[in-house]
Amino acid sequence: MKNDLLLRALKGLPVDRPPVWIMRQAGRYLPDYIKLKNKYDFFTRCKTPELVSEITLLPIDQIGTDAAIIFSDILVVLQAMNIEVEMKPNFGPFIANPIDSKEKVKNLISPNVMDKLGYVFEAIKVTKRDLNNRVPLIGFAGSPWTLFCYLVQGSGSKTFDKPKGFAFSNPKETEIILEKITLTTIEYLKGQINAGADVVQIFDSWGGLLSPSDYSQFSLKYINLIVSAIKNYAPVIIFGKGCWFALNEMAKTGASGLGIDWSCSARNARYLSGGNITLQGNYDPAKLLSPISKIKSDVHQMINDFGKERYIVNLGHGILPNIPVSHAKAFVDAVKEYQI
Amino acid sequence: MKNDLLLRALKGLPVDRPPVWIMRQAGRYLPDYIKLKNKYDFFTRCKTPELVSEITLLPIDQIGTDAAIIFSDILVVLQAMNIEVEMKPNFGPFIANPIDSKEKVKNLISPNVMDKLGYVFEAIKVTKRDLNNRVPLIGFAGSPWTLFCYLVQGSGSKTFDKPKGFAFSNPKETEIILEKITLTTIEYLKGQINAGADVVQIFDSWGGLLSPSDYSQFSLKYINLIVSAIKNYAPVIIFGKGCWFALNEMAKTGASGLGIDWSCSARNARYLSGGNITLQGNYDPAKLLSPISKIKSDVHQMINDFGKERYIVNLGHGILPNIPVSHAKAFVDAVKEYQI
Repeated sequence: MKNDLLLRALKGLPVDRPPVWIMRQAGRYLPDYIKLKNKYDFFTRCKTPELVSEITLLPIDQIGTDAAIIFSDILVVLQAMNIEVEMKPNFGPFIANPIDSKEKVKNLISPNVMDKLGYVFEAIKVTKRDLNNRVPLIGFAGSPWTLFCYLVQGSGSKTFDKPKGFAFSNPKETEIILEKITLTTIEYLKGQINAGADVVQIFDSWGGLLSPSDYSQFSLKYINLIVSAIKNYAPVIIFGKGCWFALNEMAKTGASGLGIDWSCSARNARYLSGGNITLQGNYDPAKLLSPISKIKSDVHQMINDFGKERYIVNLGHGILPNIPVSHAKAFVDAVKEYQI
Repeated sequence: MKNDLLLRALKGLPVDRPPVWIMRQAGRYLPDYIKLKNKYDFFTRCKTPELVSEITLLPIDQIGTDAAIIFSDILVVLQAMNIEVEMKPNFGPFIANPIDSKEKVKNLISPNVMDKLGYVFEAIKVTKRDLNNRVPLIGFAGSPWTLFCYLVQGSGSKTFDKPKGFAFSNPKETEIILEKITLTTIEYLKGQINAGADVVQIFDSWGGLLSPSDYSQFSLKYINLIVSAIKNYAPVIIFGKGCWFALNEMAKTGASGLGIDWSCSARNARYLSGGNITLQGNYDPAKLLSPISKIKSDVHQMINDFGKERYIVNLGHGILPNIPVSHAKAFVDAVKEYQI
């Protein structure tokens, strides 16, 4: 690997500066991505290996991040499990027939992952070829709880009350669903690693909607199973949005890194995670709308706060569509310009 | 006051059991409220003192909470400041002409609060008369930051990126707006207390979208000014959704109570707030969809975790529209049945 900063940071090895990448770095705000978006629908972009590779490489070439993350979506796992998922323009994910009653639980099948998600593995192979070892490639999956949220709600939501209500009133059926998603996800991430993913990240976007004890029961338990099953094959990063209260337990899963959102100061994040695991984050995505000089001084402060080792610079959530490319690039440049 | 449990809890005095009330207890899920909702539009309900009193008393009579909270909306303060706010059915608040550029900042005026919000004070007087000292009456206002979020966004939002972007790129104009809202809010809360409110709560619904340092700059600073100005007239409760990271600073404002959401365990809440202030919360509103027996055992556990003194039982956010009345009543009954 020509640039192995990400891998070194995840192992806790010395680095001259921390690596930097940006969640959702390949989409949304990049004009060359928008061109492809206008030409091909969302899942065509996800399912065409040459397009995936082209999109995945855009931020490497254009803003110079230290890692690539495969262009895909967490919901492809639900599609593989027999759930029809659409991505509606200006609306987001939509499931016409969500699992919103006990009777529908049987609609969710355990797929042959190679058959149903082989296109992702193929895309990873093509992308690895095109990356030519310039930077590591990150694979990913949603956490079982987060996929469950979409599965029951049928769309995005501020509060995901439907899946939460379903879980609280049908804990047994919820367990069945979460176990099924967990097993599929383990196979899926193993397949990504076999195809060439150097690191994998688990996105628990909606775990933070649960109380600590419900989080243990409905989310962390399954993340733990996934990490246990794959940590010997590749380093795992867990990103739980709003899950500050679980950082200590997450650190005990065997993951190599934890994503941190901006509600958690560097000091709190180090304290809550136990101090001995690599942390990733946590610039507020909306702060990329600040003037460039402010972005740069903020990034330097952030590195000082987290420390340059066991640290990966990133946002605390995905980049927003309205961020100027020059601001995203300033964020990356600030890391490269960092001097102790 | 016949039932002064809330006032005693806020003073840290001994109680046989903690008081209980429910955020948004007067609306949404109560059939008798829905009848009034179908008859009068939202702001007619807010602006007609007899209707306000009738709605405010519904949960006292029907589920037996230990406090009433005046039926109103945080956005009436923006209306008083010259901003046209509609409440659209199935959509929520809508501001056709939001303050989304520097040039529009002048649209926000500092009102004569008695002229513009006298109807709230009148409603408090009528409600106090009808309550006849059965339970204390809580008045309230939104935090300046939370009102700013609506003012710039023009509607609800998952992430309020527009106001955040505005604040990060126009900190001076943001300060002007926040100061104006702060001064109006101080007059507004003083007016509520003069009219009879026994306690006031400040709702910082969107403070949790900010990083700790941005929170200090854009939200806590103004909450602090408000609490300083009114704490000698009535006890103040600050509820910052998602603001676990600021509990320690909030406790230092002179507030009598802090609202806690369910992401924060009782132990964390006591630790983070310094251990010597009354806490209020923190049942996950979606957990009211659990079976009644589970709600009751959860509530007893919650009281054991927080301790029966310096504690007010509540949800961690507003009650959901789809909660059966019997479940809301079970929540209240569980507190009344509590034995050490």
